[in-house]
Amino acid sequence: MINWKNLDTLDSYQELEKVERVNLAEAMTGENGAERVRKYSVPMADGLAYNYAARPVDDKVLEVLAKLAEEAQLTEKFEALYNGEVINTGEKRLVLHHLTRGQLGEAVVADGIDKRAFYMEQQRKFSELANKVHAGEITNAAGDKFTTVVQIGIGGSDLGPRAMYLALENWAKKNNTLKMEARFISNVDPDDAAAVLASIDVAHSLFVLVSKSGTTLETLTNESFVKDALEKAGLNASRHMIAVTSETSPLAKSDDYLAAFFMDDYIGGRYSSTSAVGGVVLSLAFGPEVFEEFLAGAAAEDALSKNKDILENPAMLDALIGVYERNVLGCESTAVLPYSQGLSRFPAHLQQLDMESNGKSVNRFGEPVNYATGPVIFGEPGTNGQHSFYQLLHQGTNIVPLQFVGFRENQMGVDVVIQDSTSQQKLCANVAAQIVAFACGKADENPNKRFEGGRPSSIIIGDQLNPKTLGALLSHFENKVMFQGFIWNLNSFDQEGVQLGKVLAKRVLAHETDGALKVYSDLLHI
Amino acid sequence: MINWKNLDTLDSYQELEKVERVNLAEAMTGENGAERVRKYSVPMADGLAYNYAARPVDDKVLEVLAKLAEEAQLTEKFEALYNGEVINTGEKRLVLHHLTRGQLGEAVVADGIDKRAFYMEQQRKFSELANKVHAGEITNAAGDKFTTVVQIGIGGSDLGPRAMYLALENWAKKNNTLKMEARFISNVDPDDAAAVLASIDVAHSLFVLVSKSGTTLETLTNESFVKDALEKAGLNASRHMIAVTSETSPLAKSDDYLAAFFMDDYIGGRYSSTSAVGGVVLSLAFGPEVFEEFLAGAAAEDALSKNKDILENPAMLDALIGVYERNVLGCESTAVLPYSQGLSRFPAHLQQLDMESNGKSVNRFGEPVNYATGPVIFGEPGTNGQHSFYQLLHQGTNIVPLQFVGFRENQMGVDVVIQDSTSQQKLCANVAAQIVAFACGKADENPNKRFEGGRPSSIIIGDQLNPKTLGALLSHFENKVMFQGFIWNLNSFDQEGVQLGKVLAKRVLAHETDGALKVYSDLLHI
Repeated sequence: MINWKNLDTLDSYQELEKVERVNLAEAMTGENGAERVRKYSVPMADGLAYNYAARPVDDKVLEVLAKLAEEAQLTEKFEALYNGEVINTGEKRLVLHHLTRGQLGEAVVADGIDKRAFYMEQQRKFSELANKVHAGEITNAAGDKFTTVVQIGIGGSDLGPRAMYLALENWAKKNNTLKMEARFISNVDPDDAAAVLASIDVAHSLFVLVSKSGTTLETLTNESFVKDALEKAGLNASRHMIAVTSETSPLAKSDDYLAAFFMDDYIGGRYSSTSAVGGVVLSLAFGPEVFEEFLAGAAAEDALSKNKDILENPAMLDALIGVYERNVLGCESTAVLPYSQGLSRFPAHLQQLDMESNGKSVNRFGEPVNYATGPVIFGEPGTNGQHSFYQLLHQGTNIVPLQFVGFRENQMGVDVVIQDSTSQQKLCANVAAQIVAFACGKADENPNKRFEGGRPSSIIIGDQLNPKTLGALLSHFENKVMFQGFIWNLNSFDQEGVQLGKVLAKRVLAHETDGALKVYSDLLHI
Repeated sequence: MINWKNLDTLDSYQELEKVERVNLAEAMTGENGAERVRKYSVPMADGLAYNYAARPVDDKVLEVLAKLAEEAQLTEKFEALYNGEVINTGEKRLVLHHLTRGQLGEAVVADGIDKRAFYMEQQRKFSELANKVHAGEITNAAGDKFTTVVQIGIGGSDLGPRAMYLALENWAKKNNTLKMEARFISNVDPDDAAAVLASIDVAHSLFVLVSKSGTTLETLTNESFVKDALEKAGLNASRHMIAVTSETSPLAKSDDYLAAFFMDDYIGGRYSSTSAVGGVVLSLAFGPEVFEEFLAGAAAEDALSKNKDILENPAMLDALIGVYERNVLGCESTAVLPYSQGLSRFPAHLQQLDMESNGKSVNRFGEPVNYATGPVIFGEPGTNGQHSFYQLLHQGTNIVPLQFVGFRENQMGVDVVIQDSTSQQKLCANVAAQIVAFACGKADENPNKRFEGGRPSSIIIGDQLNPKTLGALLSHFENKVMFQGFIWNLNSFDQEGVQLGKVLAKRVLAHETDGALKVYSDLLHI
C-alpha cells in the first residue's frame, strides 16, 4: 500500500533535521578524507561510479536518509510507476519512458496494447528506415543519398536529442559510425531556422518533425519555414520529411511525410530521448546499433534504481543527498559540471529535466507544500566553467552543490604532451583539484585569498563517454529527478506552469489584449 | 571625497528595508499596469529602452533607491574609475576597459603613456591587419586568402568574443559583411581542439591566441595542439598565428606569430570584448568598420552611465533594483532571457561577467560582509527556455528575477506567415505574454493551474540586434555589474577564487598529492 505524503510529515525528515551536521572541510582532510573517497562510492552501470565523498554526509546522515527512503517508499513508488500505475495524476497518465529501453517489471497494457511491445515496434521501424537511408535505398528524388538529418522540435524534442547527439558526435567520427550529420531547429525566432537552412544542403537533408501533440506552435511554424525552403529549391517536401508524433495527432495520418513514428502521452517530452523522439535522429545520425547501445546503458542503470539499499542505488542516493542539501542545508541551486566537451549541452538538458519536473509549489493532490522543491540547475563543461563562474562557487555568499562528471579517456584519441602531461591528464587533474578545493578550502592571512571550503560536490567517473555510458548517465539523472519528486510528493510529470504564457501569447497575436499586455505589444510592434 | 562603505552601514539601505513592498501582481493589472509600462522606461543608446515596469518597485521605492545611489556615491565611484584611480585594490590596478571605446573623462596616463591612445593604436593596428587579410595582401604560404579565423582562449578570452561573434554572424551574412567564419577553441579537453580542427581547412585558417599573461595553461596547450596540426599539414605555423597578450608576456616578443597585439593588466578578461581580445577576431570576421560600430554602441551606453539621475542611467537603475531584489527581497539567482537566437551565448557571457565579478564574500578591504552579494546567473534564449525551465520560474518555490531582451525585427530578414502571424511576431508576442504572466499570474480553482504572479522581470527592447545595439547591451550589463559591486563594496575586478583550484591541479600533475586528492587522482588514472 503506497502512501503519498508530504516530506515534512515524515518522521525520518524530522530526524534528519536534527542529525549533527558534517564538517565537510574537516571530514575531507587527511587520511580520513582519503578513506571517504575510497568508501563513499557506488558502482553504476557500464563501469561508471558515483562518488559522493565530498557531499556533506556521514554514516549517521546516511542512516537517516535510508530511513527516509524507506518511509517515503521510494522503490515502491518506482515499482508502481514502471508497472503502469497512473503516476502522473494531474493529467491522469501512466509514466512509461523506462519501457523504451527495458522491461523493469510486469507487462504494461494500456489502450489495449502491450506498451513495451509498442515502443519496440517503433524502434524496429525507425531502425529499418535508418538502415535504408544509409544503404541508399531511400534517397531524394534525384536518387542521391541523404547526408544530413535536421531535427525540428522544441523543449524535450530538442534539448535531450541535441545533447545526446553532441555527446556522441566525436565518438562516432572516431569510430567511423557517423552516418549523417545532425542539425537542430527549435526557436520560433526565424533567424534560427534561416541560419540552419543556410548552412546545409537541403537537397540532401532529411527533416524530422517532432511534436507529440502535433500542435506545438514553434515546431509547426518551423516546419512551414523548412517546407518553403524545400519548395523554393524545387524539391518535393514530402520526400524529405519524417514525423514523430502521437497516433492521435493531426500529423499521424498526413501524406506530407515520408514516414511517421509514434510516441504517446505516457512519455513526457523531457523524458523522451530514448523514445522515437531521440531515436529517429540518433539512429539516422549514428546507426541503429549505436542507439541500441545507448538504450542498453540506460536500461542497465534503470535496473540499479530498483535496489532498496540506498548504497546500491546511485540515483536514489543522489536524490536523497540532494534533498538534504536543498531542504535541511538550504541550498537553492545546483551546478552540473561535466569535464567533457562532448557533454557541452548536457547541463541544458538536465536544466529542463529537473526544473520542469520539480519546479512546483503544490503536491500531487494540488495542496501547497511548505518546503522548498526543485532547485535552479545550471552548468557548463569544465575546464571552461573554471574560468567563468567558479569564482562565485568558491567564494560567493551562497553555497551551490556541484555535480561533476569526468572520464579517464577522451573521445577523439588525439592529444599532446605539454609540460609533461597530456591535455586529458590536465582535464582530469583539474576536476580532482576542484573537488578538494571546494571541500577543504584553504586558510590564508589575506581574507581575499581565503577559501572557507565546505562546498559540497559529487562526481560520476567513467572510462569514456560512449553510447552505453551516456545512456547510463541519462538514466541516472532522470531517476534522480523522479526520486526527488517522490520525496517532495510532487507530480513530476506534468508542466502546468508553461500554459499561461501560451494562452497570453495567443491573445497578443489575436490582438485581444488590454492593460499592460497591450502596451508591451505596442512597444514590440506586434 | 569617496567613502567605501558596506551596504548595511548605509542609512538609505536601512530605509529601503522598511519601505512598503510593492504588490506586483496588483500593480501590473488593469489601467494602472498599462500606465506603469508606459512610464517605467528609460531610454538607452541606439534606440534601445530599458523597461522596468514589471519589477517590484514604485515611486516610493525608486525614491529610496535614488538616495542609495547618492549615499553609495555610485556615479562618483564610476568617475574615479574612468579617470584612472586604482579601483582594483586587491591587485592594485586601474580599471580601464571603458577606454577601449571612448574617453569618458580625463586622459588616463599609466606606465608613462596615455592609455586611450594606446588602446586606439592597437585597434588601428589590428584593423590594418584585418584589411590586409581581407584584401589578400596577407595570405598563407601558397598565396591563398584566409577564410576562417579561430580564436584560442578561455574564460574572458572566449565567452565574450564568442557571444559577440554569434550575435552578429547572421546579421553580417545578411549585410554581406561576413569576411571570415570564426571558430573557437577553449577547453583543455583535447576533444574540443580536435573537433574544431577536424571541421576546418587549416591551410586557410588564421589562429588568434589570446592570453593576457601568456601563461594560461589551457590556451598554451591548445596552441601546441594547433601547431602540431599545422605542422602535420606541412604548414609554417608562424604564418597562421596571431598573439593577443600583454606587452610583458612571453608571447609578446616571440617570432612564432604573424603579428602580436596588446592589452594590459587594466582590462580584466571578462571586460575585454571591446579590447584586442575581442577586436582581432571580430575585425577579421566582420571587418574593422563593424567592430567600430560595436564600440560606438558601447561608448554611447557608457556615457549614459555617468548620469546622476537614476531615471536617466539605465545600468545604475538596473543595478539598484537588482540589489533590492537580492538583499531586501532575498532572491538568490537571476535569469537572462534574450528573445533572439543571435544572443544564444550572451547569457553564458553574462554568467562569467556577473558571477566572477561579484561572487565574493569579503569587501574591498578584505573584511567579511554580512549580506548577500552576486546572484547565480543563468539563461537560454526564448522561446526555447519556455519549453524548458520556465515551469520552475512560474510555479517553483523560489522567486527568480528575470532579465528579458527583445527586438522588433529579426536579423536574417526571412520569415513565414502561419496562422496569420510571422515567426517574428510570435517571438515578440511570447516575450510580452511572459512578462505579464510572471507579473500578474492567474487565479484558478485547480491549484495545479494557479499562478501566484508577483515574479519580477525587466525587458530591454530594441529594433534589431546589430553591432551598435550589441555594444550598448554589453555596456549596459558591464556597468550594471560594476555599480552592483560598488553597492556591495566589493572589488569586482579581481578573481582570487579561481586560484586554489589551479594550484591543486598543478600538484596533481606533479604527483605531489596525498589524502583525498591522491585517491581522486588515482581514480581518474592521472
